[in-house]
Amino acid sequence: MRTLQFEDNALVIIDQTKLPTEFKSVKLYTCREVAYAIKVLMVRGAPAIGVAAAYGLYLGVSNHNDDDIDEALAESYDLLRSTRPTAVNLFWALERAKGAFLVARPKGAAVAKQALLVEADNMAKEDVEANMKIGEYGNTLVKDGYNILTHCNAGALATVDYGTAVGVIRAAHDSGKKVHVYADETRQLLQGARLTAWELKRDEIPVTLITDNMAGFLMKQGKVDMVIVGADRIAHNGDTANKIGTYSVAVLAQCNNVPFYVAAPLSTIDIKLKNGSEIPIEERDHEEVTTIKGSRIAPADIDVYNPAFDITEANLIKGIITEKGIAYPPYEDNINNFLKA
Amino acid sequence: MRTLQFEDNALVIIDQTKLPTEFKSVKLYTCREVAYAIKVLMVRGAPAIGVAAAYGLYLGVSNHNDDDIDEALAESYDLLRSTRPTAVNLFWALERAKGAFLVARPKGAAVAKQALLVEADNMAKEDVEANMKIGEYGNTLVKDGYNILTHCNAGALATVDYGTAVGVIRAAHDSGKKVHVYADETRQLLQGARLTAWELKRDEIPVTLITDNMAGFLMKQGKVDMVIVGADRIAHNGDTANKIGTYSVAVLAQCNNVPFYVAAPLSTIDIKLKNGSEIPIEERDHEEVTTIKGSRIAPADIDVYNPAFDITEANLIKGIITEKGIAYPPYEDNINNFLKA
Repeated sequence: MRTLQFEDNALVIIDQTKLPTEFKSVKLYTCREVAYAIKVLMVRGAPAIGVAAAYGLYLGVSNHNDDDIDEALAESYDLLRSTRPTAVNLFWALERAKGAFLVARPKGAAVAKQALLVEADNMAKEDVEANMKIGEYGNTLVKDGYNILTHCNAGALATVDYGTAVGVIRAAHDSGKKVHVYADETRQLLQGARLTAWELKRDEIPVTLITDNMAGFLMKQGKVDMVIVGADRIAHNGDTANKIGTYSVAVLAQCNNVPFYVAAPLSTIDIKLKNGSEIPIEERDHEEVTTIKGSRIAPADIDVYNPAFDITEANLIKGIITEKGIAYPPYEDNINNFLKA
Repeated sequence: MRTLQFEDNALVIIDQTKLPTEFKSVKLYTCREVAYAIKVLMVRGAPAIGVAAAYGLYLGVSNHNDDDIDEALAESYDLLRSTRPTAVNLFWALERAKGAFLVARPKGAAVAKQALLVEADNMAKEDVEANMKIGEYGNTLVKDGYNILTHCNAGALATVDYGTAVGVIRAAHDSGKKVHVYADETRQLLQGARLTAWELKRDEIPVTLITDNMAGFLMKQGKVDMVIVGADRIAHNGDTANKIGTYSVAVLAQCNNVPFYVAAPLSTIDIKLKNGSEIPIEERDHEEVTTIKGSRIAPADIDVYNPAFDITEANLIKGIITEKGIAYPPYEDNINNFLKA
């Protein structure tokens, strides 16, 4: 199942706001449409956002020529950058795609456009390859019979395909190990209930859905052997921004001696940031908390705090599973080695 | 605002399944209706359940005479006992009401019925008095300007009136302290979003609604000065059963040096149980997790784990606020002293 694909000059995505009740593909023909799809979470998950943005940048320039293509690139770039603040893969992918464009630009608009598209295709291809490697490395940590808890969706739906945290689970399952997943429903937007549960069930990987506030009690009862989550941005010291609630899961894991792993491609690491306190945290609309599927669940005009992400400090993380191997503390050194390799 | 009241031979309750969108009173005329109301959470909260059950027992015998009243009592008692397994106040109240009936029984059915009703009235009155005392003792722990986090609803709606955990907040507010509440929405049934937020807003006590998975991140940021929750059953050693997610909040509080308090009347303490492992945990219908307000939020036929409560161990609890004072560890001794006093 590919979450996004470029064909016939359009970016085709699975509209994730409709899952699990409806499986629907949407074709995005313009940069503006891609930006909107990212903003409203039709496409979400740090790696998927990055690749979608690269294609969005291409769509933003594809109808322009030497006269106005540089302006179009700048505008598209700014528009896409402004969609979501936390996942660094967005900025990384835009930078890389723009770089490919600029390198080829002296050869004319047509060549530059083509270079941009090739770069986006490469990123899509590399994302799947990275996830397969993450799965392979991560699988060395998984024992037969493990119960693995995950938060939010770091699955095929959060990437171009295969997934990061769910990729590890998938690799373990595909290698013949019996694994069972506890999926946190993950309020506010229920990516665990809507997406992870759906994706795992579809692939016949045993999964049990829980509300976020049950994870601790499960761990306390010894029912969780391992936690694996994805990441939206990792600072140089290993501090990790991921979906709100990840920090809580990590603390509960530590207190119950359950190993807690992050699985993410190296493009999620922002070495410019010393630690997690520098990662911007997106706050989203209050309606996400006060209503579910259009039904009001709280009094009118109630005050709400709605951060979409939180920061899990490096000391709560047993290891970061990347496509170059598993980084262990101290993360700075290991991350440097992987980035150099 | 009284959550339950006995008038014109009926138990009048606020239907809490309808809040916050609708404020509706319901008259319950029979024991069977009361049992149903408890089972489906029209009336909920350990102290409220207890008093409702006592009135239910009365309604179960009120139309019977010497010929069949003993059978009616036994049947009603069994029916009410079977409604919910965790909150011990239910069993405590039924035992006490039945005791009053049995003491008066030799004087005839009419006198025994009257004794039962008087006992239920006494319990209702004592519940409000206990909550006021809990508020008074708890208020000594609250400083001006405190941000207090609470989970689920231990408010007026969980008791006959005033509340336990929310009673402490109410007492602090009424004494002129500026307090601000963070209310966990409390999945599955959203008692925080639907009831606590509604009740506090109604009483003009500042409140901010959050999803359960945000509590840890708030604490990490130093935005929570204190946690107060209610209880459904407290073992002799202080281990506390309360709404699912309470254990997670307690662990997060401990890791962030935020004091965590339980507020509950002594009727919540089950000294027969040495520790929390002996407390039965109710598991509820999967639909509570897979649907919200009738809308499906998860794939069909997904496996679900749905415990309604969890156990917070005594070592995570800084103090238990009761109507006789605040019990501190070691809880056995302090609890014994309060029960003797």
